[in-house]
Amino acid sequence: MEPAIILVRPQLGMNIGMVARAMANFGLSDLRLVAPRDGWPNPDAGPPAAGADHVLDRAQVFACVGEALADCQLSYATTFRPRDLMKPVMTPRAAAAAIRSSHGKAGILFGPERSGLATDDIVTVQTLVTIPAAPSFASLNLAQSVLVLAYEWFLAQASPLAAAERIPAPHADLAGLLAQLNEALAAAGYFHPPERTRATRRTLAGILSAARFTADEIRTLRGVVRALARPRNP
Amino acid sequence: MEPAIILVRPQLGMNIGMVARAMANFGLSDLRLVAPRDGWPNPDAGPPAAGADHVLDRAQVFACVGEALADCQLSYATTFRPRDLMKPVMTPRAAAAAIRSSHGKAGILFGPERSGLATDDIVTVQTLVTIPAAPSFASLNLAQSVLVLAYEWFLAQASPLAAAERIPAPHADLAGLLAQLNEALAAAGYFHPPERTRATRRTLAGILSAARFTADEIRTLRGVVRALARPRNP
Repeated sequence: MEPAIILVRPQLGMNIGMVARAMANFGLSDLRLVAPRDGWPNPDAGPPAAGADHVLDRAQVFACVGEALADCQLSYATTFRPRDLMKPVMTPRAAAAAIRSSHGKAGILFGPERSGLATDDIVTVQTLVTIPAAPSFASLNLAQSVLVLAYEWFLAQASPLAAAERIPAPHADLAGLLAQLNEALAAAGYFHPPERTRATRRTLAGILSAARFTADEIRTLRGVVRALARPRNP
Repeated sequence: MEPAIILVRPQLGMNIGMVARAMANFGLSDLRLVAPRDGWPNPDAGPPAAGADHVLDRAQVFACVGEALADCQLSYATTFRPRDLMKPVMTPRAAAAAIRSSHGKAGILFGPERSGLATDDIVTVQTLVTIPAAPSFASLNLAQSVLVLAYEWFLAQASPLAAAERIPAPHADLAGLLAQLNEALAAAGYFHPPERTRATRRTLAGILSAARFTADEIRTLRGVVRALARPRNP
């Protein structure tokens, strides 16, 4: 299944157009924009797309990363800096092979031109992707990063091992579990002291996303949380 | 040895800058410009280079492809259209492996943004490189094409088979042989009818470049041509 290319807070329309062209070069057309700086549609995207209008026309806009990933079962985030996040890191070639071999829908996140992805963008992402590059000059242009992933996806072969694959639930299911758990834990007074709440939620989100639960497993876990959160007789 | 990236008649300074950035991303710095449309240096190249100034500063300008290739022993030309040229065609991955495995200097030609390389640009080139892409949208942006080759070069490993390699002569040696041969053949009345001269020269250039003669072999062949061209008693 074709992966979604998800641009997080992209700045320049020109770059969005070049991304569309790179996607079309390698047979991709599912472009998603999270909070594009200059709104959407953006006339600057047209000329550099060089005819990839079908990609621009189909582009969807989302308010946050979670919404853009909602239907994705596999999630990847490109990052050129090493991140202290305890998530697996793959090369584009390995990630492309994994996506080709899966029956799940994949989403690949790319950060803003200047700053890259924020930690909060990737806390529920399963896998990081780092493009091998010269250490002294490792930051690729946005469209160039998309091109490398699209090119590797185009060349990758599905592995026959995929038959027995365990497909993670879509990100929307995980988001539902996390919301329910956070609510229950808040009611139970778990977030203490209050200034640690955000970091603690991040940690939980990281742990539970890394587990790659299936949709069935998430249903079971939601029942567990519901049972534990139920008011009890003292 | 690092391959030279040779842009033939590039049009936009912005694209030259993006090429420089893509080269720096993968540790390349030998940029050559053949007859850039807007001259050189070009201030438009600076911002998209995003700090790859060492590549732009080192860029060399040449009047024709032959001069840009003069010191290259291996020559590649990127082309997305099939060419009726009877030259071997490689993928970027295979070409990168061949360059990594060789002790010779390689030059890789990239055509102008709009039109690609002309037939005369590539008549003495040994190998064509076609980037695998979606058939319905196969034309990559100039910097994206360079990126694919640079990325594959960065990832490629040298093969141990290179030890016994036969390194072709630099292109300047081949150009010398062709000039001598054309002169001798003209004197001998070989180019007949005159309107076929250009096509016949192209054919000879194609045949002799495909042979990938070494420098020693070219010296021998030049002696052969000299002997044959010498005035004889009737």
